[in-house]
Amino acid sequence: MENSIYVAKPKVVNDPILGLIEIKSPIILSLIEHRWLQRLRRINQLGLGELVYPGARHNRFGHTLGATYLMELAIDTLRSKGEIISDEEKEAAMIAILLHDIGHCPFSHALEYQIANVCHEDLSIVFMEKLNEEYNGRLSLALQIFKGEYHKKYLTKLISGQLDVDRLDYLSRDSFFTGVTEGNVNTDRLIKLMAIDNDRLVVEKKGMYSIEKFLVARRLMYWQVYLHKTVHSAEQLLISILRRAKDLCHKGEDFFASPALKFFLTHEVTVDDFRNDSITETGKTVLENFAMLDDSDLLVSVKTWSMHHDRVLSLLCQNLINRRLPKTMVQDKPVGKFMEKYLRERVMQEFNLTKAESEYFVSSGTISNKAYSQNHDQILVKEKEGNVIEIEKVADMMNIRALSTTISKFFISWPKNIELE
Amino acid sequence: MENSIYVAKPKVVNDPILGLIEIKSPIILSLIEHRWLQRLRRINQLGLGELVYPGARHNRFGHTLGATYLMELAIDTLRSKGEIISDEEKEAAMIAILLHDIGHCPFSHALEYQIANVCHEDLSIVFMEKLNEEYNGRLSLALQIFKGEYHKKYLTKLISGQLDVDRLDYLSRDSFFTGVTEGNVNTDRLIKLMAIDNDRLVVEKKGMYSIEKFLVARRLMYWQVYLHKTVHSAEQLLISILRRAKDLCHKGEDFFASPALKFFLTHEVTVDDFRNDSITETGKTVLENFAMLDDSDLLVSVKTWSMHHDRVLSLLCQNLINRRLPKTMVQDKPVGKFMEKYLRERVMQEFNLTKAESEYFVSSGTISNKAYSQNHDQILVKEKEGNVIEIEKVADMMNIRALSTTISKFFISWPKNIELE
Amino acid sequence: MENSIYVAKPKVVNDPILGLIEIKSPIILSLIEHRWLQRLRRINQLGLGELVYPGARHNRFGHTLGATYLMELAIDTLRSKGEIISDEEKEAAMIAILLHDIGHCPFSHALEYQIANVCHEDLSIVFMEKLNEEYNGRLSLALQIFKGEYHKKYLTKLISGQLDVDRLDYLSRDSFFTGVTEGNVNTDRLIKLMAIDNDRLVVEKKGMYSIEKFLVARRLMYWQVYLHKTVHSAEQLLISILRRAKDLCHKGEDFFASPALKFFLTHEVTVDDFRNDSITETGKTVLENFAMLDDSDLLVSVKTWSMHHDRVLSLLCQNLINRRLPKTMVQDKPVGKFMEKYLRERVMQEFNLTKAESEYFVSSGTISNKAYSQNHDQILVKEKEGNVIEIEKVADMMNIRALSTTISKFFISWPKNIELE
Amino acid sequence: MENSIYVAKPKVVNDPILGLIEIKSPIILSLIEHRWLQRLRRINQLGLGELVYPGARHNRFGHTLGATYLMELAIDTLRSKGEIISDEEKEAAMIAILLHDIGHCPFSHALEYQIANVCHEDLSIVFMEKLNEEYNGRLSLALQIFKGEYHKKYLTKLISGQLDVDRLDYLSRDSFFTGVTEGNVNTDRLIKLMAIDNDRLVVEKKGMYSIEKFLVARRLMYWQVYLHKTVHSAEQLLISILRRAKDLCHKGEDFFASPALKFFLTHEVTVDDFRNDSITETGKTVLENFAMLDDSDLLVSVKTWSMHHDRVLSLLCQNLINRRLPKTMVQDKPVGKFMEKYLRERVMQEFNLTKAESEYFVSSGTISNKAYSQNHDQILVKEKEGNVIEIEKVADMMNIRALSTTISKFFISWPKNIELE
Repeated sequence: MENSIYVAKPKVVNDPILGLIEIKSPIILSLIEHRWLQRLRRINQLGLGELVYPGARHNRFGHTLGATYLMELAIDTLRSKGEIISDEEKEAAMIAILLHDIGHCPFSHALEYQIANVCHEDLSIVFMEKLNEEYNGRLSLALQIFKGEYHKKYLTKLISGQLDVDRLDYLSRDSFFTGVTEGNVNTDRLIKLMAIDNDRLVVEKKGMYSIEKFLVARRLMYWQVYLHKTVHSAEQLLISILRRAKDLCHKGEDFFASPALKFFLTHEVTVDDFRNDSITETGKTVLENFAMLDDSDLLVSVKTWSMHHDRVLSLLCQNLINRRLPKTMVQDKPVGKFMEKYLRERVMQEFNLTKAESEYFVSSGTISNKAYSQNHDQILVKEKEGNVIEIEKVADMMNIRALSTTISKFFISWPKNIELE
Repeated sequence: MENSIYVAKPKVVNDPILGLIEIKSPIILSLIEHRWLQRLRRINQLGLGELVYPGARHNRFGHTLGATYLMELAIDTLRSKGEIISDEEKEAAMIAILLHDIGHCPFSHALEYQIANVCHEDLSIVFMEKLNEEYNGRLSLALQIFKGEYHKKYLTKLISGQLDVDRLDYLSRDSFFTGVTEGNVNTDRLIKLMAIDNDRLVVEKKGMYSIEKFLVARRLMYWQVYLHKTVHSAEQLLISILRRAKDLCHKGEDFFASPALKFFLTHEVTVDDFRNDSITETGKTVLENFAMLDDSDLLVSVKTWSMHHDRVLSLLCQNLINRRLPKTMVQDKPVGKFMEKYLRERVMQEFNLTKAESEYFVSSGTISNKAYSQNHDQILVKEKEGNVIEIEKVADMMNIRALSTTISKFFISWPKNIELE
Repeated sequence: MENSIYVAKPKVVNDPILGLIEIKSPIILSLIEHRWLQRLRRINQLGLGELVYPGARHNRFGHTLGATYLMELAIDTLRSKGEIISDEEKEAAMIAILLHDIGHCPFSHALEYQIANVCHEDLSIVFMEKLNEEYNGRLSLALQIFKGEYHKKYLTKLISGQLDVDRLDYLSRDSFFTGVTEGNVNTDRLIKLMAIDNDRLVVEKKGMYSIEKFLVARRLMYWQVYLHKTVHSAEQLLISILRRAKDLCHKGEDFFASPALKFFLTHEVTVDDFRNDSITETGKTVLENFAMLDDSDLLVSVKTWSMHHDRVLSLLCQNLINRRLPKTMVQDKPVGKFMEKYLRERVMQEFNLTKAESEYFVSSGTISNKAYSQNHDQILVKEKEGNVIEIEKVADMMNIRALSTTISKFFISWPKNIELE
Repeated sequence: MENSIYVAKPKVVNDPILGLIEIKSPIILSLIEHRWLQRLRRINQLGLGELVYPGARHNRFGHTLGATYLMELAIDTLRSKGEIISDEEKEAAMIAILLHDIGHCPFSHALEYQIANVCHEDLSIVFMEKLNEEYNGRLSLALQIFKGEYHKKYLTKLISGQLDVDRLDYLSRDSFFTGVTEGNVNTDRLIKLMAIDNDRLVVEKKGMYSIEKFLVARRLMYWQVYLHKTVHSAEQLLISILRRAKDLCHKGEDFFASPALKFFLTHEVTVDDFRNDSITETGKTVLENFAMLDDSDLLVSVKTWSMHHDRVLSLLCQNLINRRLPKTMVQDKPVGKFMEKYLRERVMQEFNLTKAESEYFVSSGTISNKAYSQNHDQILVKEKEGNVIEIEKVADMMNIRALSTTISKFFISWPKNIELE
């Protein structure tokens, strides 16, 4: 049977960042072989980031394996320092991180809310619940930990906190594949310095400079990679394409798309539609339809639509597929409203479009990032004497407070061939 | 205009292996932006290799940039040793290597001859010739060099020889992304030791141990990555899928595929069809149709066909998409014919198939590799006294001769769930 | 003749951090072969740091070559951006950085002012002046640049500023050899982003996160390596040994030391003694005597003195040579005076020593560091619009101000076998 | 007490190659702190190799820790494959490799047999036996394993075989510090593929290409580093210096040397003198005298002797200390005898020396290396079917036989300033 749980031999995966990763747990091996996890092989970790960093084509699957391995290392470290963590808890925490990204849509963050009006964390929970049924309740503890409902809160914090194995893995990984070496973090050292104090995850004080460097590296990766203006403009372009395609669908235009993608182009779905197993015209549930989607559905559609008779759609698609990305201006204060008006005017003239059509070609908005949050869930440091304080209160760490300001930048983008003179 | 040649600002690309690569030549910048070269972004360098090495999702585009950069380094080295190479020759050699993979089909080597009955080198030449027209003959010298028709034969040898910039780049690159660190070669040193002697590319003698290591690393990469038995079995599976899809097409079955792929499923084309610009029913030439194809066309089709009513096709597709790859046995002597008969019998029973249908599920054949060829185009070593000899004749390099034996291995593969007792 | 200037062939050095470094300038090649520069081969870059980081035995010679190479890269970058720098200026700037550490004493910073009462920068200038005579004035421009007397101030700033090639090299190098990977900085990128604006060294704005990371990495290296408490306690021990040895010398005790070291044990010298070429009883000038000293003189003496009949000296030496290093406490506020009294009392009892003798075994003081100085010589950032501002005034770089606080820590160290209970 | 065994807390060492190494065994921690092992901190792994590769100043101490750690990994791997190895055996094997280099003299191989007429392996055994007394027989099992007297022969082979943890560590380490990246070997993979078959150490067949690469990397390191002609000529120079110094001593000349070194300059000792604890005029045993020696004794002496009134000695020492190394010619056939005669003649004229004196300046001989030995102790490969064969008999590994030829090269070296025209 397709998803039957079977006893597997341990497997070794050669990860270019973490080396040989051995996976021994039969249930984890079985989950990895599940079609829903295999799907993550076909979703890029950095979405369109590869248009700026050609090496950055790594997928969510590799990140998922890496984070699971780091969870194992973290728990082994905590155990070696005397914390009692049962084998069941360890396996559950590893399963929770293994499945944390299972609800991601194609192109990850770029298309979140665009394909279906649901955030990826909620979808991950729906997927986990379905898997839990399939695995006869054996994922219940993992689900509890994931949702923060288990009493050992530090296990949840290792999955999702300001210093969790998710961030530790993706920073190293994205740094490796983009070649932005400055984003690299000393994962090994940061994990070895973790400890538990009164059920709270803490870091030994001698690791404080490493944490500072971790936060600074993360901030650098945000501005240099994740929010890179060219990547951002490509994402805006993809969103415009999807918007135009949906609009045309609603007008009854028929056009090429894989059956799975066509369903989402023609239906607005909510998280309940995923949960309720309602059957669609493809004979599959909404969830199964979603689970058929990956980056390739979008890529093939964009390529094919580049020859579509709707000029707006074909122009947008040609620009993306041949990497003629919009120009983007990023600045510290909001973009004046006349600039946007002016650019739309130019687009209308240049491409002979209506005002409504021009809106697909000019986009503006805000991008913001905060390296560290002082308000909740702070990183805790354990001093030699045993007291535990927030990292930003440690002497010599005052600059962490400065890192907790939200930095907002304002952007506007428009077609490449329009010069601002 | 889409492909107009324009003066561009130098661009810098961050390559995770080679660091910051600066591209200054306007024509090279223009070619990189051409849709035909951008297509290489969507073709994996190692095809299905990512199913075994999850990090190995790098594309032909990155390899192409890397090899072009290494060509620049090599020519700068040769110039610094007194060889006169004009700026035109340098640019042409760089263009030739930039375009050397432009004719690759999706999944590279796996589908060569399957999509169209042409080898990728021939197709690359057709693409270059079309580009040469578009660029008003400015690629003529590059074409001459590529085809080996230019009098400075060493420029051709740098593109395609037993120690060329193509191999130097892909070995380092594939080693980096797979995590098979042993495949890494000392590109920098090997290039710095190159020289020209009487119009022949030679390597200084003190580099002989580096060449030996390069050949051994290449051999290791062949058996551990390129011809890895699981990768190979996945490729056999993809070939069977394509074969079945074509067979069904010929029987008149209608089914989902992007227009570009559908053309190749329903037509047998030759290299002349590419050359002749004949227009197809999509309104595009055969070449333009081909240039629309990349890995995503195959992936979306395989996913969609996994729900096809033809059981053979859907079973094969489910196996690939969910990574239930065939088992493979590899051995030093040919597989006995009864084993294959026996396995087909088992497939017929297990899946309730006809004999003809069972053939898609069992494949056998030979894989072979030779690390070094002694017969032509040997690597030449320049001794201190100035004489030039073939590497395999250098004292202490006798083992190179052993590397020049062709090693053949015999494989057979069959569906995962069939146990051999 | 020993130091004759001769025309040399270019040489290539294999640096494990920077790769193949080619040195072409004949005068630089000649200086590298000078005995005074060869001496830097025998002085560890991190002094006693190897007692904590076993890999950190790299010497000042390698650092010196590395920094000279980075100077070449920096000047090539500035030239490529249109700045006019003559070949003479380039060579002079390279010579200045090549010689910047030539006045270092054994064990570098630890013994500064202990062997002779002169700082190493002043000594480096004396050495350069003597070399300038030997090279018939060909180092005059290098000296001017080194001293900040040349009108192109940015050349001086590249040698000694808050973002100079000295720091760029030693951070990467020390990070590499200690294995403290977090200290690594993106030298290549930082140099490529340098520019000159109105005779001032500036960094392009898109490099601001890299600068932030550079400052944070430097701070981390300070606390984790350079001021590491165990390294610091070993240095205190070495200083006590030298102090005791000098004291015994002054009392007329005769004991083993190399002739060069014996001179400095028995004489107090000032910078003028170095300058004046006064001849000592060894028949050599003070400067030549100093130039005979390196780490090995101290090591052999400490080993031999570990069998000396003076118990204070032999105990101290045994502790250093066999790595029984003092315990050290480091805290944010000054050490209470009774603690020091108490520890000396314990030492007197434990080792049966007088009060005066006990002082060699307990040391206390302050160690401090400032990651960035806001008061002078700030790092300047050039914004896109062309205006130049101090890095700490750039929006989103407010935390740099926090890094400019001087952090002081207070330490006390005492013999290992005394427990504080 | 100086060498008392005490219970220590686990320690972590930051190794730049292997990462964080944790040492838990109290007896191993105690041995590491022993003055005899601390001495290895002051002996370079590659002796004078740093004169060619400036980064290569790493010591035997780091190698020793690394190899001990690899032994732990190897035994953990074998245990995970079902081999029963007791904790005592594991600790003993780790101790044996920890102490395997303890008998090395200064400058390692260069001065072997020059300081005392004993090979370093024999001396290591004497040291271990003395330590075994000091540790009340707790090293007996380690000694048995080291000497090959324990019935589990594979433990001995892990210490000293054609694929042992010694070689695995030093190849990676020397590659890292020299920057000769091609010498790097995939330690992790090679260890993970080890297994035991009938009490024999074997490697799984899928590791055969990795073994081939290991042998080729080792060969490359031999010719490019260990037997590099400039390194070799520096070693010849050091040997000549020591020979001249001894000759002068025997003639009754008095001169500077540390007491420990002076003893060996003036006495010819055998392995029995080490074993018998005979007391020397320094009041120490021969063994303790030897244990006081390290690289610094030689360095300080060579520096001081560079001012000695004996012209032969001072010339030789100046050449070494200021790195004016002899020229060396290396060729595939023996050096003609007239060349040596001629060069001595030239030396006599140039430096105004007698014939006997000239012999210190010209040296000739043979250097040879064999990458793999087919005669005994071959590397065994376990095929899938379970049979075990020698690596050189595996199909596709025929070239290993070629690697088992002994390659001999012939050298002659003479003072730098004598041109051969």
